[in-house]
Amino acid sequence: MTDRLLDDFLAGQRTALARAVSVVENHRPGFDTLLGAVHSRIGRARRIGLTGPPGAGKSTLTSRVAQSFRRGDLSVGILAVDPTSPYTGGALLGDRVRMEDIALDRGVYIRSLATRGALGGLSAATREVADLLDAFGFDRVLIETVGVGQSELDVARTADTIVVVLVPESGDSIQALKAGLMEIADIFVVNKADRPGADRLRRDIETALHYRPASAWTPPVIATVGISGDGIPELLAALDAHHQYLVDSGALAERRRVRLRERVVDVVDQRLKARVWDDPSASEWLAARLTPLAAGETTPFAVADELLERFL
Amino acid sequence: MTDRLLDDFLAGQRTALARAVSVVENHRPGFDTLLGAVHSRIGRARRIGLTGPPGAGKSTLTSRVAQSFRRGDLSVGILAVDPTSPYTGGALLGDRVRMEDIALDRGVYIRSLATRGALGGLSAATREVADLLDAFGFDRVLIETVGVGQSELDVARTADTIVVVLVPESGDSIQALKAGLMEIADIFVVNKADRPGADRLRRDIETALHYRPASAWTPPVIATVGISGDGIPELLAALDAHHQYLVDSGALAERRRVRLRERVVDVVDQRLKARVWDDPSASEWLAARLTPLAAGETTPFAVADELLERFL
Repeated sequence: MTDRLLDDFLAGQRTALARAVSVVENHRPGFDTLLGAVHSRIGRARRIGLTGPPGAGKSTLTSRVAQSFRRGDLSVGILAVDPTSPYTGGALLGDRVRMEDIALDRGVYIRSLATRGALGGLSAATREVADLLDAFGFDRVLIETVGVGQSELDVARTADTIVVVLVPESGDSIQALKAGLMEIADIFVVNKADRPGADRLRRDIETALHYRPASAWTPPVIATVGISGDGIPELLAALDAHHQYLVDSGALAERRRVRLRERVVDVVDQRLKARVWDDPSASEWLAARLTPLAAGETTPFAVADELLERFL
Repeated sequence: MTDRLLDDFLAGQRTALARAVSVVENHRPGFDTLLGAVHSRIGRARRIGLTGPPGAGKSTLTSRVAQSFRRGDLSVGILAVDPTSPYTGGALLGDRVRMEDIALDRGVYIRSLATRGALGGLSAATREVADLLDAFGFDRVLIETVGVGQSELDVARTADTIVVVLVPESGDSIQALKAGLMEIADIFVVNKADRPGADRLRRDIETALHYRPASAWTPPVIATVGISGDGIPELLAALDAHHQYLVDSGALAERRRVRLRERVVDVVDQRLKARVWDDPSASEWLAARLTPLAAGETTPFAVADELLERFL
């Protein structure tokens, strides 16, 4: 079945792409064969991450950017990384709805990635699925992350270019700076720039940028209004400029090497965990140790060491 | 030195607590001996997590709750979990400043936890440091997490009782539901409840709660104004009620068993990674494989398997 799936994937069949993403996302049997088989095809797509606080309008911006790429006849894969549980997953896809106008376009593929549990985290899953989209042949891969937490920063770091989207609302600016977005941004977008406070937010960002270590690339701050499309051409120009900078400076090759390194570290991590936990008796043995642990008769370290001795 | 540190810690010396937290946070030599030695003392503190979107006023609420505990002569350890990088860490501690009024109280200990890198994540670090505060003898441990991402949800899950703080601002409610906060909340707080939209947010939460699987505990929705202190007594009553529910239903023992299980899994994970990566030649060997990887001559899986064969 995986051979057939691989053939169909390489032939550019969309249904095969969707199946392949599911296989990889859930680490179903054969996922590593599949990823290994397409590995030599990756490295062509430009990967663009969009991140920022909830409600910043990332999905609308992502749709706008995708539409613009389509006008230039570029195909676009969109990965919406969403730590939503199954329970809310169905009911509240407010943002996804706004993507309807591009969802019927054959040159666009949209996929939500949910949280990955025990084996490997969300950023590992994002790297793997983005590799698939790249290998499938999309010219651009847009990675939109919901939230501003540590795992979202890690997800954003899987892209070549990171766009941080902020809105002129109370507390956003200082909170965004605190959350580490300042360090990872290649481009800032002040979205909903028709609202009061947009100029002030822009100045706050520019002030904060002075504290950033000097670099050959200074992140531009671009004002947009996602709903009307104002500022989108400027954003696209900034994306092109940053890509050119990455190529010219050698930073693109370096970012891709770092990503490949992280891919290997992810796999090592997954393999190590599997060696211990694939054996169900390891979990059973641990369950039986919880009562003495709770009673303070032993420690997590002693239990872990004994578990490794028995099951590795 | 660790023996001396342990003695001072057990004698209740605050300077020893601060040093012990640093040792554990950074996994400096002897951290496991230290945590092992105090393990039998944990399980007395009530652990309360406060989480929610940026700008929701979590720090102010945390201060208010801590002040109230102090009036009841309860000692309080506060863990502010903050994925801030060193660069922004110094400059922008806006929220911390609001804690000044409680920071001079000897019955209160405040500590910021930054991101932990390669060995173990933020939730593992939070579990470990919360164990230390518990073992030191604090009656209450408040865990405040900045952000609404996956790692923040994981951090919040290290508590016995999880308080989700929202504010009546555009987009917050649906975004919070999307981010998985709905599932983990034991108590909802609508903070800044003097602002327009507070009633609507409250109704939105209550509506969404109908979709939650039936349970013996229905999360109350409490309106507060952190700045004035309105609603804080109701929040404290809800915290007590939830604790009583946890005790009566057996859920407290179950949550603590889950936490102990996760502590062991964390340690196993850290030990496994250390076995491979503590050897610097593993990283060097990997660095030399990046060029053939980038050229598509080999795959991350093949490299990972060879690395494990050589270095495990």
